[in-house]
Amino acid sequence: MRVIESISELRAAMRGHDRRGFVPTMGNLHDGHIDLTRIARREVGPDGLVIMSIFVNRLQFGPREDFDRYPRTFEQDCDKCRAAGVDIVFAPPESELYPVPQGYMVEPPAIQHELDGAVRPGHFRGVATVVLKLFNIVQPSVAVFGKKDYQQCRVLDGMVQQLNLGIKMVFGETVRAQDGLALSSRNGYLSEAERAEAPALYRELVSVAAFVREAPNADFRVLERDAETRLRQRGWLPDYVAIRRRQDLAVAQPGDQGLVVLAAARLGSTRLIDNLEVTG
Amino acid sequence: MRVIESISELRAAMRGHDRRGFVPTMGNLHDGHIDLTRIARREVGPDGLVIMSIFVNRLQFGPREDFDRYPRTFEQDCDKCRAAGVDIVFAPPESELYPVPQGYMVEPPAIQHELDGAVRPGHFRGVATVVLKLFNIVQPSVAVFGKKDYQQCRVLDGMVQQLNLGIKMVFGETVRAQDGLALSSRNGYLSEAERAEAPALYRELVSVAAFVREAPNADFRVLERDAETRLRQRGWLPDYVAIRRRQDLAVAQPGDQGLVVLAAARLGSTRLIDNLEVTG
Repeated sequence: MRVIESISELRAAMRGHDRRGFVPTMGNLHDGHIDLTRIARREVGPDGLVIMSIFVNRLQFGPREDFDRYPRTFEQDCDKCRAAGVDIVFAPPESELYPVPQGYMVEPPAIQHELDGAVRPGHFRGVATVVLKLFNIVQPSVAVFGKKDYQQCRVLDGMVQQLNLGIKMVFGETVRAQDGLALSSRNGYLSEAERAEAPALYRELVSVAAFVREAPNADFRVLERDAETRLRQRGWLPDYVAIRRRQDLAVAQPGDQGLVVLAAARLGSTRLIDNLEVTG
Repeated sequence: MRVIESISELRAAMRGHDRRGFVPTMGNLHDGHIDLTRIARREVGPDGLVIMSIFVNRLQFGPREDFDRYPRTFEQDCDKCRAAGVDIVFAPPESELYPVPQGYMVEPPAIQHELDGAVRPGHFRGVATVVLKLFNIVQPSVAVFGKKDYQQCRVLDGMVQQLNLGIKMVFGETVRAQDGLALSSRNGYLSEAERAEAPALYRELVSVAAFVREAPNADFRVLERDAETRLRQRGWLPDYVAIRRRQDLAVAQPGDQGLVVLAAARLGSTRLIDNLEVTG
């Protein structure tokens, strides 16, 4: 496995390899990330290249967010990638991706301002911009993202289609701890007591999704408010619990098919997000 | 020469050809465009592919601009391309480039709102977005644009750098009629009397550039206002005459090196632009 910091060196290392599976991350890797590298390998085959980028992207953090304290565990990340059969870890310093302040941005459509985008202004613009830059550098045939960041998957999938990127987008299922908590780098911020409480977010999603499945004509707005209230009663500060259409994340109406329940809530100083597709 | 309308057909036709020289146009070709195809050929060599796109891009026209009456001369354009040795003309219908309304836009930095951008709000966002889409479809090694659209060249060059597109950008010199008028599709809108008057815009640029060369510490703002006044006295409605730094189009200060003089003005109902680099 090669660890590469410069764009020109990466381009040289990839030359002649047309099948490229790309997994962009911010590092602090857990089993969810590793699962995405397995998907990438399956997509490109044994002779293809699996490339992971590790880059904590300042552009997608708000001024009062956790950019500075975001966990950075580069050596362990490389060990995990090596064990998982990754071919190249691309870990550019900020001066390589942003030699001057980024002036050209990808502006996603209105969905960028809803759900997580309503709480994190500019977040999806920052995500879309860095991912486009990384796509242009890596020129992957396949890119793999985790469904834990469901809205991000939708925004990036739309970008690939509308900017004609010609990249196959694959979305990996959320990997969970035994108690249901979605794996996330931010779980590391939780105290022991908070960690014990954290799976309640997923249980709430399971409960809302079950209700939607059983009562597809229920008043979804009441279900959302009730779930937020229950979380608040347990000590969370919910940003949203939302029943949406999977395809475009439009607000779901009774009778709609193909739905997903999304939630974001603060537990102490840690903001967790999760989601669950309504099946069956 | 092949004429191709669909993205998938174009991608198939280009497969196996890595040297691709690309000339994006809105059609109604004149010698300036054809000169760009010669530059593209020189760049990619006899075995490379020279691809011209012909697409009148609605996104870059304002609601009160000339999208509907913009001259469309597709058959003659193809004849000229064939004669010039172009390999592929890519002429997608709107439904191919914009199957749904474009929701993802490239947002260039503040320079997009100055000069032509001040008069044509959203113009450079529309240009950058369609050119990025075309770049992603064609994946050229070299792209060639004409310096007549100087601000466009700067905006697109910045985009290629900051979005890490890895495309060599080449800018062709403005081709002029014998009397100095820059070739432009919009010259076709001019009446006979207007056509006789039109070279006055270029003469004004020559005069300002000569003055700047001789008196590099002059008050540039006074030179600009005087040139606008002279145009107004001849019956033009100038949008701007501006002395800028070539590199970033920042407002030039006395003593600055590497300058360009840009102008835009209306003659009757036709808006003409032109520019001249200050040399020597």
